[in-house]
Amino acid sequence: MAIEIITEYINLSTRGHADVIDITQQVASVIEKNKIIDGTVTIFVPGATGAVTTIEFEPELVKDTKELFFEIVKEQKKYYHNTTHSQGNATSHLRATLIGPSLTVPITQGRMNLGIWQQIVFIDFDNRARQRELVLKIIGEKKK
Amino acid sequence: MAIEIITEYINLSTRGHADVIDITQQVASVIEKNKIIDGTVTIFVPGATGAVTTIEFEPELVKDTKELFFEIVKEQKKYYHNTTHSQGNATSHLRATLIGPSLTVPITQGRMNLGIWQQIVFIDFDNRARQRELVLKIIGEKKK
Amino acid sequence: MAIEIITEYINLSTRGHADVIDITQQVASVIEKNKIIDGTVTIFVPGATGAVTTIEFEPELVKDTKELFFEIVKEQKKYYHNTTHSQGNATSHLRATLIGPSLTVPITQGRMNLGIWQQIVFIDFDNRARQRELVLKIIGEKKK
Repeated sequence: MAIEIITEYINLSTRGHADVIDITQQVASVIEKNKIIDGTVTIFVPGATGAVTTIEFEPELVKDTKELFFEIVKEQKKYYHNTTHSQGNATSHLRATLIGPSLTVPITQGRMNLGIWQQIVFIDFDNRARQRELVLKIIGEKKK
Repeated sequence: MAIEIITEYINLSTRGHADVIDITQQVASVIEKNKIIDGTVTIFVPGATGAVTTIEFEPELVKDTKELFFEIVKEQKKYYHNTTHSQGNATSHLRATLIGPSLTVPITQGRMNLGIWQQIVFIDFDNRARQRELVLKIIGEKKK
Repeated sequence: MAIEIITEYINLSTRGHADVIDITQQVASVIEKNKIIDGTVTIFVPGATGAVTTIEFEPELVKDTKELFFEIVKEQKKYYHNTTHSQGNATSHLRATLIGPSLTVPITQGRMNLGIWQQIVFIDFDNRARQRELVLKIIGEKKK
Protein backbone atom coordinates (compact mmCIF):
# COMPACT_ATOMS: atom_id res chain seq x y z
CA MET A 1 0.00 0.00 0.00
CA ALA A 2 1.67 3.17 -1.18
CA ILE A 3 1.83 6.41 0.80
CA GLU A 4 0.36 9.46 -0.91
CA ILE A 5 0.49 13.19 -0.32
CA ILE A 6 -2.82 15.00 -0.61
CA THR A 7 -3.50 18.74 -0.51
CA GLU A 8 -6.87 20.22 0.26
CA TYR A 9 -8.13 23.62 1.33
CA ILE A 10 -10.78 24.80 3.78
CA ASN A 11 -12.38 28.15 3.09
CA LEU A 12 -13.83 30.12 5.98
CA SER A 13 -15.60 33.42 6.53
CA THR A 14 -14.63 34.68 9.97
CA ARG A 15 -15.72 37.60 12.12
CA GLY A 16 -12.16 38.19 13.41
CA HIS A 17 -11.64 39.42 16.99
CA ALA A 18 -10.69 35.93 18.24
CA ASP A 19 -13.48 34.20 16.36
CA VAL A 20 -13.15 30.50 17.29
CA ILE A 21 -14.36 28.18 14.51
CA ASP A 22 -14.76 24.42 14.86
CA ILE A 23 -13.31 22.88 11.68
CA THR A 24 -13.23 19.25 12.89
CA GLN A 25 -16.01 18.08 10.59
CA GLN A 26 -14.46 19.75 7.56
CA VAL A 27 -11.10 18.09 8.20
CA ALA A 28 -12.81 14.73 8.83
CA SER A 29 -14.73 15.04 5.55
CA VAL A 30 -11.53 15.61 3.60
CA ILE A 31 -9.99 12.49 5.15
CA GLU A 32 -13.09 10.46 4.37
CA LYS A 33 -13.46 11.79 0.84
CA ASN A 34 -9.86 10.82 0.10
CA LYS A 35 -10.31 7.40 1.77
CA ILE A 36 -7.23 7.90 3.98
CA ILE A 37 -6.96 5.12 6.54
CA ASP A 38 -3.59 5.84 8.14
CA GLY A 39 -1.21 8.80 8.37
CA THR A 40 -1.17 12.42 9.50
CA VAL A 41 -2.98 15.59 8.55
CA THR A 42 -1.24 18.95 9.00
CA ILE A 43 -3.58 21.91 9.21
CA PHE A 44 -1.76 25.14 8.38
CA VAL A 45 -2.78 28.80 8.51
CA PRO A 46 -1.16 30.88 5.75
CA GLY A 47 -1.13 34.16 7.63
CA ALA A 48 0.27 35.58 10.85
CA THR A 49 -2.94 36.63 12.64
CA GLY A 50 -4.69 33.25 12.73
CA ALA A 51 -3.93 30.10 14.71
CA VAL A 52 -4.95 26.46 14.85
CA THR A 53 -5.17 24.13 17.85
CA THR A 54 -7.60 21.81 19.62
CA ILE A 55 -9.99 22.72 22.44
CA GLU A 56 -13.20 21.38 23.87
CA PHE A 57 -15.49 23.39 21.65
CA GLU A 58 -18.27 24.43 23.98
CA PRO A 59 -19.57 28.02 24.16
CA GLU A 60 -18.49 28.82 27.73
CA LEU A 61 -14.94 27.56 27.26
CA VAL A 62 -14.73 29.47 23.98
CA LYS A 63 -15.51 32.63 26.00
CA ASP A 64 -12.84 31.73 28.58
CA THR A 65 -10.32 31.12 25.80
CA LYS A 66 -10.97 34.50 24.19
CA GLU A 67 -10.74 36.26 27.56
CA LEU A 68 -7.41 34.58 28.29
CA PHE A 69 -5.80 35.87 25.11
CA PHE A 70 -7.24 39.36 25.61
CA GLU A 71 -5.85 39.30 29.13
CA ILE A 72 -2.34 38.09 28.24
CA VAL A 73 -2.08 40.48 25.29
CA LYS A 74 -3.79 43.66 26.36
CA GLU A 75 -5.52 45.95 23.88
CA GLN A 76 -4.73 49.22 25.68
CA LYS A 77 -0.93 48.92 25.57
CA LYS A 78 1.07 50.92 23.01
CA TYR A 79 2.52 48.61 20.38
CA TYR A 80 5.39 49.47 18.03
CA HIS A 81 3.73 47.65 15.10
CA ASN A 82 0.71 49.96 15.29
CA THR A 83 2.88 53.06 14.92
CA THR A 84 4.00 51.95 11.46
CA HIS A 85 1.09 49.76 10.31
CA SER A 86 -2.30 51.41 10.11
CA GLN A 87 -4.32 48.20 10.57
CA GLY A 88 -3.58 48.49 14.26
CA ASN A 89 -3.56 44.73 14.72
CA ALA A 90 -0.38 44.15 16.75
CA THR A 91 -2.42 42.30 19.36
CA SER A 92 -3.79 39.96 16.66
CA HIS A 93 -0.26 38.98 15.73
CA LEU A 94 0.89 38.49 19.31
CA ARG A 95 -2.13 36.39 20.31
CA ALA A 96 -1.71 34.17 17.23
CA THR A 97 1.96 33.65 18.09
CA LEU A 98 1.02 32.16 21.46
CA ILE A 99 -0.83 29.31 19.73
CA GLY A 100 0.93 28.96 16.38
CA PRO A 101 -0.07 28.36 12.76
CA SER A 102 0.35 24.58 12.43
CA LEU A 103 -1.23 21.46 13.91
CA THR A 104 -0.47 17.84 13.00
CA VAL A 105 -3.09 15.22 13.91
CA PRO A 106 -2.61 11.46 13.45
CA ILE A 107 -5.13 9.43 11.46
CA THR A 108 -5.71 5.77 12.38
CA GLN A 109 -8.23 3.35 10.86
CA GLY A 110 -9.76 6.15 8.85
CA ARG A 111 -10.32 8.57 11.72
CA MET A 112 -8.35 11.29 13.47
CA ASN A 113 -7.15 10.25 16.95
CA LEU A 114 -9.06 13.04 18.68
CA GLY A 115 -10.50 12.77 22.16
CA ILE A 116 -14.28 12.80 22.53
CA TRP A 117 -14.28 16.33 23.94
CA GLN A 118 -11.57 17.63 21.62
CA GLN A 119 -12.23 19.63 18.48
CA ILE A 120 -9.90 21.23 15.96
CA VAL A 121 -10.38 24.99 15.91
CA PHE A 122 -9.19 27.87 13.81
CA ILE A 123 -8.97 31.11 15.76
CA ASP A 124 -9.01 34.32 13.77
CA PHE A 125 -7.28 36.89 15.94
CA ASP A 126 -7.36 39.60 13.28
CA ASN A 127 -9.28 42.77 14.15
CA ARG A 128 -11.70 42.50 11.22
CA ALA A 129 -13.77 39.94 9.36
CA ARG A 130 -11.63 37.85 7.03
CA GLN A 131 -11.89 35.29 4.26
CA ARG A 132 -9.42 32.54 5.15
CA GLU A 133 -8.08 29.56 3.28
CA LEU A 134 -6.45 26.93 5.46
CA VAL A 135 -4.19 24.28 3.96
CA LEU A 136 -4.60 20.59 4.77
CA LYS A 137 -1.64 18.39 3.88
CA ILE A 138 -2.23 14.68 4.37
CA ILE A 139 0.58 12.14 4.24
CA GLY A 140 -1.09 8.77 4.37
CA GLU A 141 -2.30 5.51 2.95
CA LYS A 142 -5.56 5.07 1.09
CA LYS A 143 -7.98 2.23 1.51
CA LYS A 144 -7.36 -0.38 -1.18
CA MET B 1 13.82 1.63 0.99
CA ALA B 2 10.10 2.12 1.43
CA ILE B 3 8.49 4.59 3.81
CA GLU B 4 6.11 3.14 6.35
CA ILE B 5 3.51 4.53 8.72
CA ILE B 6 3.58 3.11 12.23
CA THR B 7 1.13 3.69 15.07
CA GLU B 8 1.97 3.08 18.70
CA TYR B 9 0.51 4.15 22.02
CA ILE B 10 2.01 5.24 25.32
CA ASN B 11 -0.06 4.63 28.44
CA LEU B 12 0.47 6.84 31.45
CA SER B 13 -0.92 7.19 34.95
CA THR B 14 -0.74 10.86 35.88
CA ARG B 15 -1.41 12.80 39.06
CA GLY B 16 -2.97 15.73 37.14
CA HIS B 17 -2.47 19.31 38.41
CA ALA B 18 0.27 20.05 35.86
CA ASP B 19 2.04 16.73 36.36
CA VAL B 20 5.07 16.88 34.04
CA ILE B 21 6.12 13.42 32.81
CA ASP B 22 9.28 12.70 30.84
CA ILE B 23 8.29 10.34 28.00
CA THR B 24 11.53 10.59 25.99
CA GLN B 25 12.67 7.07 26.75
CA GLN B 26 9.28 5.59 25.87
CA VAL B 27 9.24 7.36 22.50
CA ALA B 28 12.86 6.34 21.84
CA SER B 29 12.02 2.71 22.63
CA VAL B 30 9.18 2.69 20.12
CA ILE B 31 11.50 4.05 17.43
CA GLU B 32 14.16 1.47 18.27
CA LYS B 33 11.71 -1.42 18.48
CA ASN B 34 10.38 -0.56 15.02
CA LYS B 35 13.94 -0.11 13.66
CA ILE B 36 13.12 3.36 12.25
CA ILE B 37 16.25 5.04 10.95
CA ASP B 38 14.85 8.16 9.31
CA GLY B 39 11.60 10.14 9.44
CA THR B 40 9.38 11.93 11.94
CA VAL B 41 7.41 10.96 15.01
CA THR B 42 4.29 12.92 15.93
CA ILE B 43 3.26 12.66 19.58
CA PHE B 44 -0.41 13.52 20.02
CA VAL B 45 -2.61 13.95 23.09
CA PRO B 46 -6.21 12.84 22.48
CA GLY B 47 -7.83 15.18 24.97
CA ALA B 48 -8.06 18.91 25.64
CA THR B 49 -6.51 19.13 29.12
CA GLY B 50 -3.10 17.62 28.34
CA ALA B 51 -0.20 18.97 26.32
CA VAL B 52 3.08 17.79 24.83
CA THR B 53 6.30 19.73 24.31
CA THR B 54 10.02 19.57 25.11
CA ILE B 55 11.77 21.04 28.14
CA GLU B 56 14.98 20.43 30.05
CA PHE B 57 13.53 17.90 32.46
CA GLU B 58 15.14 18.78 35.75
CA PRO B 59 13.15 19.12 39.00
CA GLU B 60 13.69 22.84 39.58
CA LEU B 61 12.72 23.85 36.06
CA VAL B 62 9.69 21.59 36.28
CA LYS B 63 8.60 23.63 39.31
CA ASP B 64 9.19 26.89 37.43
CA THR B 65 7.18 25.60 34.49
CA LYS B 66 4.21 24.68 36.68
CA GLU B 67 4.34 28.05 38.44
CA LEU B 68 4.35 29.86 35.11
CA PHE B 69 1.16 28.21 33.93
CA PHE B 70 -0.55 28.73 37.29
CA GLU B 71 0.46 32.38 37.10
CA ILE B 72 -0.71 33.01 33.54
CA VAL B 73 -4.00 31.16 34.07
CA LYS B 74 -5.08 31.96 37.59
CA GLU B 75 -7.11 29.54 39.67
CA GLN B 76 -9.10 32.17 41.55
CA LYS B 77 -10.75 33.82 38.52
CA LYS B 78 -14.39 33.04 37.66
CA TYR B 79 -14.53 30.96 34.47
CA TYR B 80 -17.62 30.52 32.29
CA HIS B 81 -16.82 26.85 31.65
CA ASN B 82 -17.04 26.07 35.36
CA THR B 83 -20.57 27.48 35.60
CA THR B 84 -21.85 24.82 33.20
CA HIS B 85 -19.35 21.97 33.71
CA SER B 86 -19.06 20.55 37.19
CA GLN B 87 -15.48 19.27 36.81
CA GLY B 88 -14.35 22.84 37.37
CA ASN B 89 -11.33 22.41 35.12
CA ALA B 90 -11.48 25.50 32.94
CA THR B 91 -7.92 26.36 33.97
CA SER B 92 -6.76 22.89 32.84
CA HIS B 93 -8.12 23.55 29.37
CA LEU B 94 -6.65 27.03 29.11
CA ARG B 95 -3.20 25.97 30.29
CA ALA B 96 -3.14 23.08 27.83
CA THR B 97 -4.09 25.44 25.00
CA LEU B 98 -0.97 27.54 25.63
CA ILE B 99 1.23 24.53 24.80
CA GLY B 100 -0.87 22.45 22.42
CA PRO B 101 -1.61 18.75 21.88
CA SER B 102 0.87 17.84 19.13
CA LEU B 103 4.64 17.66 18.73
CA THR B 104 6.59 16.45 15.69
CA VAL B 105 10.21 15.40 16.22
CA PRO B 106 12.61 14.41 13.41
CA ILE B 107 14.41 11.05 13.51
CA THR B 108 17.86 10.75 11.90
CA GLN B 109 20.18 7.72 11.88
CA GLY B 110 17.87 5.89 14.25
CA ARG B 111 17.63 8.63 16.88
CA MET B 112 15.47 11.65 17.56
CA ASN B 113 17.27 14.95 16.91
CA LEU B 114 16.88 16.14 20.49
CA GLY B 115 19.36 18.36 22.27
CA ILE B 116 21.30 16.87 25.18
CA TRP B 117 19.30 18.86 27.74
CA GLN B 118 15.97 18.46 25.96
CA GLN B 119 13.33 15.92 26.90
CA ILE B 120 9.86 15.23 25.54
CA VAL B 121 7.25 15.79 28.22
CA PHE B 122 3.57 15.20 28.59
CA ILE B 123 1.93 17.70 30.94
CA ASP B 124 -1.37 16.68 32.47
CA PHE B 125 -3.12 19.93 33.33
CA ASP B 126 -6.35 18.23 34.40
CA ASN B 127 -7.42 18.76 38.01
CA ARG B 128 -7.41 15.06 38.90
CA ALA B 129 -5.36 11.92 38.39
CA ARG B 130 -5.88 10.49 34.91
CA GLN B 131 -5.12 7.46 32.81
CA ARG B 132 -3.83 8.77 29.49
CA GLU B 133 -3.08 7.16 26.17
CA LEU B 134 -0.87 9.20 23.87
CA VAL B 135 -0.64 8.42 20.17
CA LEU B 136 2.69 8.10 18.38
CA LYS B 137 2.56 8.24 14.60
CA ILE B 138 5.83 7.56 12.86
CA ILE B 139 6.35 8.21 9.17
CA GLY B 140 9.74 6.79 8.32
CA GLU B 141 12.09 4.28 6.84
CA LYS B 142 13.14 1.06 8.52
CA LYS B 143 16.61 -0.36 8.66
CA LYS B 144 17.08 -2.91 5.88
CA MET C 1 6.51 9.41 -8.04
CA ALA C 2 8.08 8.12 -4.85
CA ILE C 3 8.07 9.93 -1.53
CA GLU C 4 11.46 10.64 -0.01
CA ILE C 5 12.74 11.74 3.36
CA ILE C 6 15.38 14.45 3.32
CA THR C 7 17.41 15.85 6.22
CA GLU C 8 19.14 19.20 6.13
CA TYR C 9 20.56 21.55 8.74
CA ILE C 10 20.55 25.33 9.11
CA ASN C 11 23.43 26.84 11.07
CA LEU C 12 22.90 30.16 12.80
CA SER C 13 24.90 32.57 14.93
CA THR C 14 22.49 34.26 17.31
CA ARG C 15 22.80 37.07 19.82
CA GLY C 16 20.47 35.33 22.31
CA HIS C 17 18.14 37.45 24.49
CA ALA C 18 15.10 36.73 22.27
CA ASP C 19 16.98 37.28 19.04
CA VAL C 20 14.38 36.77 16.29
CA ILE C 21 15.90 35.45 13.06
CA ASP C 22 14.04 35.13 9.77
CA ILE C 23 14.97 31.71 8.31
CA THR C 24 12.33 31.61 5.56
CA GLN C 25 14.78 32.02 2.71
CA GLN C 26 17.09 29.34 4.07
CA VAL C 27 14.24 26.84 4.36
CA ALA C 28 12.98 27.77 0.88
CA SER C 29 16.48 27.25 -0.56
CA VAL C 30 16.67 23.75 0.90
CA ILE C 31 13.31 22.86 -0.65
CA GLU C 32 14.38 24.27 -4.01
CA LYS C 33 17.82 22.66 -3.94
CA ASN C 34 16.21 19.26 -3.30
CA LYS C 35 13.55 19.88 -5.99
CA ILE C 36 10.69 19.06 -3.59
CA ILE C 37 7.35 19.82 -5.19
CA ASP C 38 4.90 18.43 -2.61
CA GLY C 39 5.02 17.44 1.05
CA THR C 40 5.89 18.92 4.42
CA VAL C 41 8.96 20.39 6.07
CA THR C 42 9.37 20.11 9.83
CA ILE C 43 11.74 22.68 11.34
CA PHE C 44 13.02 21.49 14.71
CA VAL C 45 15.16 23.15 17.40
CA PRO C 46 17.42 20.68 19.21
CA GLY C 47 17.58 22.55 22.50
CA ALA C 48 15.22 23.83 25.16
CA THR C 49 15.91 27.59 25.03
CA GLY C 50 15.06 28.19 21.37
CA ALA C 51 11.72 28.15 19.55
CA VAL C 52 10.37 28.19 16.00
CA THR C 53 7.14 29.72 14.69
CA THR C 54 5.88 32.13 12.04
CA ILE C 55 5.35 35.87 12.42
CA GLU C 56 5.16 38.88 10.15
CA PHE C 57 8.87 39.67 10.25
CA GLU C 58 8.96 43.45 10.43
CA PRO C 59 11.14 45.33 12.94
CA GLU C 60 8.38 46.92 15.01
CA LEU C 61 6.45 43.68 15.46
CA VAL C 62 9.68 41.91 16.35
CA LYS C 63 10.06 44.43 19.20
CA ASP C 64 6.46 43.85 20.32
CA THR C 65 7.03 40.09 20.26
CA LYS C 66 10.13 40.33 22.43
CA GLU C 67 8.36 42.63 24.90
CA LEU C 68 5.45 40.21 25.16
CA PHE C 69 7.66 37.32 26.21
CA PHE C 70 9.63 39.48 28.64
CA GLU C 71 6.32 40.62 30.12
CA ILE C 72 4.76 37.17 30.48
CA VAL C 73 7.95 35.65 31.90
CA LYS C 74 9.48 38.32 34.08
CA GLU C 75 13.24 38.59 34.60
CA GLN C 76 13.07 39.82 38.19
CA LYS C 77 11.21 36.83 39.67
CA LYS C 78 13.11 34.19 41.65
CA TYR C 79 13.29 30.95 39.69
CA TYR C 80 14.09 27.52 41.14
CA HIS C 81 16.18 26.55 38.10
CA ASN C 82 18.57 29.44 38.71
CA THR C 83 19.29 28.27 42.26
CA THR C 84 20.78 25.02 40.95
CA HIS C 85 21.98 26.02 37.46
CA SER C 86 24.53 28.80 37.23
CA GLN C 87 23.61 29.88 33.70
CA GLY C 88 20.65 31.71 35.23
CA ASN C 89 18.51 31.13 32.16
CA ALA C 90 15.23 29.88 33.64
CA THR C 91 13.39 32.63 31.80
CA SER C 92 14.92 31.46 28.50
CA HIS C 93 13.46 28.00 29.04
CA LEU C 94 10.03 29.26 30.05
CA ARG C 95 9.72 31.68 27.13
CA ALA C 96 10.75 28.96 24.67
CA THR C 97 8.12 26.62 26.13
CA LEU C 98 5.36 29.10 25.28
CA ILE C 99 6.17 28.78 21.57
CA GLY C 100 7.63 25.30 21.22
CA PRO C 101 10.53 23.67 19.34
CA SER C 102 8.77 22.30 16.25
CA LEU C 103 6.93 23.72 13.24
CA THR C 104 5.53 21.78 10.27
CA VAL C 105 4.85 23.73 7.07
CA PRO C 106 3.18 22.26 3.96
CA ILE C 107 4.88 22.44 0.56
CA THR C 108 2.74 22.66 -2.59
CA GLN C 109 3.91 23.06 -6.20
CA GLY C 110 7.45 23.57 -5.00
CA ARG C 111 6.73 26.33 -2.48
CA MET C 112 5.79 26.54 1.17
CA ASN C 113 2.16 27.57 1.72
CA LEU C 114 3.10 30.70 3.65
CA GLY C 115 1.07 33.89 3.64
CA ILE C 116 2.60 36.95 2.01
CA TRP C 117 3.24 38.63 5.37
CA GLN C 118 4.30 35.44 7.14
CA GLN C 119 7.90 34.42 7.75
CA ILE C 120 9.43 31.44 9.56
CA VAL C 121 11.46 32.62 12.52
CA PHE C 122 13.82 31.04 14.98
CA ILE C 123 13.82 32.82 18.35
CA ASP C 124 16.85 32.32 20.54
CA PHE C 125 15.65 32.95 24.08
CA ASP C 126 18.94 31.96 25.68
CA ASN C 127 20.72 34.65 27.70
CA ARG C 128 23.90 34.58 25.64
CA ALA C 129 25.03 34.42 22.02
CA ARG C 130 24.76 30.90 20.63
CA GLN C 131 25.73 28.79 17.66
CA ARG C 132 22.58 26.87 16.68
CA GLU C 133 21.92 24.04 14.29
CA LEU C 134 18.26 23.60 13.34
CA VAL C 135 17.04 20.38 11.76
CA LEU C 136 14.88 20.38 8.63
CA LYS C 137 13.10 17.12 7.89
CA ILE C 138 11.26 17.05 4.58
CA ILE C 139 8.82 14.29 3.67
CA GLY C 140 7.90 14.85 0.07
CA GLU C 141 8.00 14.17 -3.62
CA LYS C 142 10.71 15.38 -5.97
CA LYS C 143 10.20 16.83 -9.40
CA LYS C 144 10.67 14.14 -12.02
